[in-house]
Amino acid sequence: MSDLTATADSPVLAAARRAREAAAALAPVPRSVKDAALLAIADALVERSAEITAANAQDVERARAAGTAESVIDRLTLTAERIAAIASDVRSVVGLPDPVGEVVRGYTLPNGLDVRQVRVPLGVVGIIYEARPNVTVDAAALCLKSGNAVLLRGSGSAYRSNTALVEVLRAAVAGAGLPADVIQLVPGESRESVQELMRARGLVDVLIPRGGASLIRTVVEGSTVPVIETGTGNCHVYVDAQADLAMAVGVLLNSKAQRVSVCNSAETLLVHQDVADAFLPLALAALAEAGVTVHGDDAVLKAAEGTGVTAVPATEEDWGTEYLSLDLAAAVVPSLEAAVEHIRRYSSGHTEAIVTGSQPAARRFTQLVDSTTVAVNASTRFTDGGEFGFGAEIGISTQKLHARGPMGLPELTSTKYIVTGDGHVRGEARQTVGG
Amino acid sequence: MSDLTATADSPVLAAARRAREAAAALAPVPRSVKDAALLAIADALVERSAEITAANAQDVERARAAGTAESVIDRLTLTAERIAAIASDVRSVVGLPDPVGEVVRGYTLPNGLDVRQVRVPLGVVGIIYEARPNVTVDAAALCLKSGNAVLLRGSGSAYRSNTALVEVLRAAVAGAGLPADVIQLVPGESRESVQELMRARGLVDVLIPRGGASLIRTVVEGSTVPVIETGTGNCHVYVDAQADLAMAVGVLLNSKAQRVSVCNSAETLLVHQDVADAFLPLALAALAEAGVTVHGDDAVLKAAEGTGVTAVPATEEDWGTEYLSLDLAAAVVPSLEAAVEHIRRYSSGHTEAIVTGSQPAARRFTQLVDSTTVAVNASTRFTDGGEFGFGAEIGISTQKLHARGPMGLPELTSTKYIVTGDGHVRGEARQTVGG
Repeated sequence: MSDLTATADSPVLAAARRAREAAAALAPVPRSVKDAALLAIADALVERSAEITAANAQDVERARAAGTAESVIDRLTLTAERIAAIASDVRSVVGLPDPVGEVVRGYTLPNGLDVRQVRVPLGVVGIIYEARPNVTVDAAALCLKSGNAVLLRGSGSAYRSNTALVEVLRAAVAGAGLPADVIQLVPGESRESVQELMRARGLVDVLIPRGGASLIRTVVEGSTVPVIETGTGNCHVYVDAQADLAMAVGVLLNSKAQRVSVCNSAETLLVHQDVADAFLPLALAALAEAGVTVHGDDAVLKAAEGTGVTAVPATEEDWGTEYLSLDLAAAVVPSLEAAVEHIRRYSSGHTEAIVTGSQPAARRFTQLVDSTTVAVNASTRFTDGGEFGFGAEIGISTQKLHARGPMGLPELTSTKYIVTGDGHVRGEARQTVGG
Repeated sequence: MSDLTATADSPVLAAARRAREAAAALAPVPRSVKDAALLAIADALVERSAEITAANAQDVERARAAGTAESVIDRLTLTAERIAAIASDVRSVVGLPDPVGEVVRGYTLPNGLDVRQVRVPLGVVGIIYEARPNVTVDAAALCLKSGNAVLLRGSGSAYRSNTALVEVLRAAVAGAGLPADVIQLVPGESRESVQELMRARGLVDVLIPRGGASLIRTVVEGSTVPVIETGTGNCHVYVDAQADLAMAVGVLLNSKAQRVSVCNSAETLLVHQDVADAFLPLALAALAEAGVTVHGDDAVLKAAEGTGVTAVPATEEDWGTEYLSLDLAAAVVPSLEAAVEHIRRYSSGHTEAIVTGSQPAARRFTQLVDSTTVAVNASTRFTDGGEFGFGAEIGISTQKLHARGPMGLPELTSTKYIVTGDGHVRGEARQTVGG
């Protein structure tokens, strides 16, 4: 259903059309050529570091003049050292296996037909993201390795940085003998260019929004192009009746406070009532030390007295909030089933952890909780492509279709069936469901 | 992102919410219980055959009064014999392996964490389809086996039949101890109920439209719920320079004419110029005998003279048309690459076949053609879940995300990661890309 073949092209659609052509050329390219292009990219980033940081300085200056928060400016800023680190990440992608061509299933039918299901690139991948220029290079490298053309639509506030980066990437790719149009920055800084990407069904195979909840929601709700929803994480730690309490404190602290601004950090603590009296004083004291503010139910507020923790009453809204800060909602629950019920109601389906010494409790929790990742006696922070051993990550999918959880290179592919016979034809006219 | 928790419920949303609850209860149910429910369904369909055919007779009568085409009425009609066949299909689903719980990947990380990726149900599956009451039972059986709740939105013209069928299914499911709400007919016959399903993001996990191109297009373009696009098939047969001509005639005839109204039948023939003079007279005579009308380019029209085939000049529109009739577009191409280019331009990406004796040509064609299925020396008609050995099929996906080609039970699942440790926490605060 290519809806767009007859329409006059805007710059965005023209870019998408060029990406489509380039993707077709890239799809059958063997790994050695793609790896050579990646190495050329890594070298070029380091060599041309000065022009990249010069362009980036303009973005940073504009952001500062606009009164942008320092944390955002920090994410936006590129230095020679940071560029070297980005280049090093590209080199590590070289070492990852090429997913394209992998035979996922293969068998011979009773009639002698050979059926093979083989991984192929998705085609054209659109990435919509915020003011992190490192994503420009990461996404381009992962898409290139998996045989996809990429349309990069970064934040307007990083437009100069991204323009410089993409110029470096394209020159390196062209130098390695591949079409430069496999990597393109979506032209224009306006919101309209995002809207155009979202409607480019038939030209763009998938859109992956990465960033804040409102960006993701806009893309998910308005796009006719298939979308992979990423990122929102209202993660829970449930401390079961039979938990090792010291372990539970360690898992809780790590889940909540090791790094607070990320999607796999915990936002809510649920404690089984049978261990609440023993566990909460320990946990709340540790949370106090970490500087965490607790939004508690009545039982938690009562336990907080004298522990030194800052505690405020939890509102209905707290249970559904992804704080991304040193805040934690906390409640005492009467049972594992009540914890599961709470999670089902409020979780964004990213990651939930149980701390328990009981095998039946672990089994029941992992069966009943429907999230991308269920952790048993481990921190929620492990839900991450790097931690899972994928070597790289294009995002964490929180939807159920196509990919769920951390997405590595295989998640940037589709499959096709190759059926081989000796002139095989079908015998009887049985019903085909699909058409 | 459950957008709907605060809204007042329409009957459709209320049904979706009940489905969601029922899906949560169904997800951990073991295979033996689901299989018992399927057997109960099969028995009940046969036992209550009379009330189903009585309801169906009302639909048929209304359709006939409305002047509906006989082919559509034939698809709509249920007889005791057809119901017995549908029941037998349900019994065959019992024999298929349960995809839920399958460990897709599993390994231990260097830090000792066990990671397992396990198949889980999608949750709530919405099926939107046309006037084929057999789909009601097929879809319900496949969703039940894969642990999903299903919302069935059939054609208004089959509403009485579907109401009777779903009543039988629900009673059987309840009798087997499962919540009846795992199978629901979407209330109302209006188009509005389809629109509501399409906007029920957060309640419905995936929509699968099955039927004509306009239905599929409406759902694909208007839905905020993830959609699996199915079915449109503008399939090609390419006869290469080194083809066995008798084999090519056999594959072409079977692809075009064995059953014309299905998505995996061929609509366009492409012939390499080096064999056109030898192949076309044979092929066109065979097509004439099968009653096929050829829409040819100049070379084909010239070759058609004296073969007895009905031949008309092909228009630009012909190359993009899914005839679903005894019509075939046909052209002579200068090379394999030109055939690939033609396919890339006009194909719907369903199935393309090459007939060739050349290994390099077969390899090149399968590499370059980007469709759900590429057949070498075999009919396009094999793209089918039954033919592929899946035992059952919920449709044929023509999109790249999640599932591509015939979809069986595994394609009705998602996965989740289960991560198990001994109190594992993350050591250093490295960057998490996803959020």
